[in-house]
Amino acid sequence: MNKINMKQLANELNVSVGTVSKALSDSHEISDQTKKKVLETASRLNYTLNPYASSLRNKKSKTIAVVLPEVADNFFSLAINGIQSVCEKKGYHVLIYLSHEKFNNEKSILSECCSGRVDGVLISVSSETTDADHISKLQQQNIPLVFFDREFEGLHAAKVVTNDFECGYKSAEHLLNNGCTNPVFLSVSSKLAICNNRAEGFKTALKDKKMSDVEKAIIECNGTKEEVYLQIKNILTANDKPDGIVASVERLAMAVYLVCQEINISIPADLKVLVFSTLETAPILNPPLTTISQPAFEIGKTAAELLFKGIEKKKYSLADEIITLPSVLIERTSSQAF
Amino acid sequence: MNKINMKQLANELNVSVGTVSKALSDSHEISDQTKKKVLETASRLNYTLNPYASSLRNKKSKTIAVVLPEVADNFFSLAINGIQSVCEKKGYHVLIYLSHEKFNNEKSILSECCSGRVDGVLISVSSETTDADHISKLQQQNIPLVFFDREFEGLHAAKVVTNDFECGYKSAEHLLNNGCTNPVFLSVSSKLAICNNRAEGFKTALKDKKMSDVEKAIIECNGTKEEVYLQIKNILTANDKPDGIVASVERLAMAVYLVCQEINISIPADLKVLVFSTLETAPILNPPLTTISQPAFEIGKTAAELLFKGIEKKKYSLADEIITLPSVLIERTSSQAF
Repeated sequence: MNKINMKQLANELNVSVGTVSKALSDSHEISDQTKKKVLETASRLNYTLNPYASSLRNKKSKTIAVVLPEVADNFFSLAINGIQSVCEKKGYHVLIYLSHEKFNNEKSILSECCSGRVDGVLISVSSETTDADHISKLQQQNIPLVFFDREFEGLHAAKVVTNDFECGYKSAEHLLNNGCTNPVFLSVSSKLAICNNRAEGFKTALKDKKMSDVEKAIIECNGTKEEVYLQIKNILTANDKPDGIVASVERLAMAVYLVCQEINISIPADLKVLVFSTLETAPILNPPLTTISQPAFEIGKTAAELLFKGIEKKKYSLADEIITLPSVLIERTSSQAF
Repeated sequence: MNKINMKQLANELNVSVGTVSKALSDSHEISDQTKKKVLETASRLNYTLNPYASSLRNKKSKTIAVVLPEVADNFFSLAINGIQSVCEKKGYHVLIYLSHEKFNNEKSILSECCSGRVDGVLISVSSETTDADHISKLQQQNIPLVFFDREFEGLHAAKVVTNDFECGYKSAEHLLNNGCTNPVFLSVSSKLAICNNRAEGFKTALKDKKMSDVEKAIIECNGTKEEVYLQIKNILTANDKPDGIVASVERLAMAVYLVCQEINISIPADLKVLVFSTLETAPILNPPLTTISQPAFEIGKTAAELLFKGIEKKKYSLADEIITLPSVLIERTSSQAF
């Protein structure tokens, strides 16, 4: 069964295309009886309105874009669910784009978003993103945009984030209180604002405890899975190896656990570990893993709600909105005093 | 800076809209010099072609839909990456829709897909899906469709699946060989073909070992996180409690681990556990978890490749394609003989 167009539908009904079009858009010029007949025939012949034609008329695509670095991280899975919960109620589609942590991918995705395909954009930037021209271009075209979780610092835009600096501070304090004398912070990228804020908080806590050489305590780990594994193995076999690790993202903590398993480092006796993560398996790991858990679903939901304000209200200064939702430290065995 | 339309661009250039349109679609009727001038001005004034208008002309949306039950499961994260790897090369957008395991959501999503918004659909059905009218409707409208992982049995359609029956058989055999005398299979839904195939394989292995009452060995667990937790707690505190569990999906295994932690059941001494999952943390759980690991990325990639054959080739009988990619049993501590 092939789709029929409006003209074929009009022929079938023996009326003009204009009548069909008006009937389908519920015009007052058309009688209820005719509307009913048109709808019945349209349904019987499987006629569906072309959404692109309809978009051209309404100038709304009823679609938003969500630009993410990846979906393998549990944080983004939960955030997507939060976003979707809002979009469903609004009758909006969610177009999910993955940058795979590449700046060039992100640029070409946003350039697509400029061309009328979407009514708004939610974005969490890639770890490579060092300038924001591609993002400002979107704003210049009056396309509502909200950062969630990973923002681009210095750009005047709406943001839904968590208290990264404070949690970085708390993470160091927690390790020091539990007996660590040489804790390090594993950063995933020195280009990411959230990572830097966490690292700054971590360093500030060390300084407040009068520790010296705090810059050395921030170590960047990135690359493929294998490369990250080797970097962490080097850190954990060096002469000045740490006795505490704060992992800035989920996959770094997994690599730490695997390395410890391989070279027989006992957690928490020899090394205390803490991670910024919403990892569901944290309580059943060996040992259960202490997390700083972000309100991922809420962050996604709040960002989507903000975006719709920007889409729906004409004179709303969306870019002034900055919302911070706090994360929570959940203590488990991996960071216990021994 | 607001967007300009084709008419404004034509005015700026002092030519007709027709000339601009032809120049932008690289028509032979327009001189190279004029084309160059139009492109330069379009670029300077930030003119972008409306993709919906362009879709109407080309009758291609350059978008495919991926319909999934959820993204929290690591399998779907990996499958999306596989799908995306193909779509990027083809210059296609990926519209990700989540059914949240609800049949009604899935129906309304597919009805949207009927209206010309997408050129093809990849789908993994919800655990509630019991009839396929909404899916056949798509096929009747000649919209290419490929099932991946969770298919709808009995519907003549392209499918990329894994060897579920065989793996179900293997899982039971593995537990019996390692000393279990009362293993059970936790199904997530008796409506899901993949779950039933795994369960059938499991039962067949028990029958081959001359075990009686094999129907009792299949137990359905579903509902909210809390409900599933309680169901599993009931199973593990009953008089005839099992000494082996095969979990058909990731989240059931996580619940089993949490219950065992709470009521002090030792894995694998008191209970052996095995799960159908690509869970990344499986090797660092307490104890490391035996998995039947599906080639998730490959399943996504293969399904997308198949879909593009259906989109690009006019006379291709897509529905005849059934591809089975084998899963692998990875033995870890949780199922060891004790």
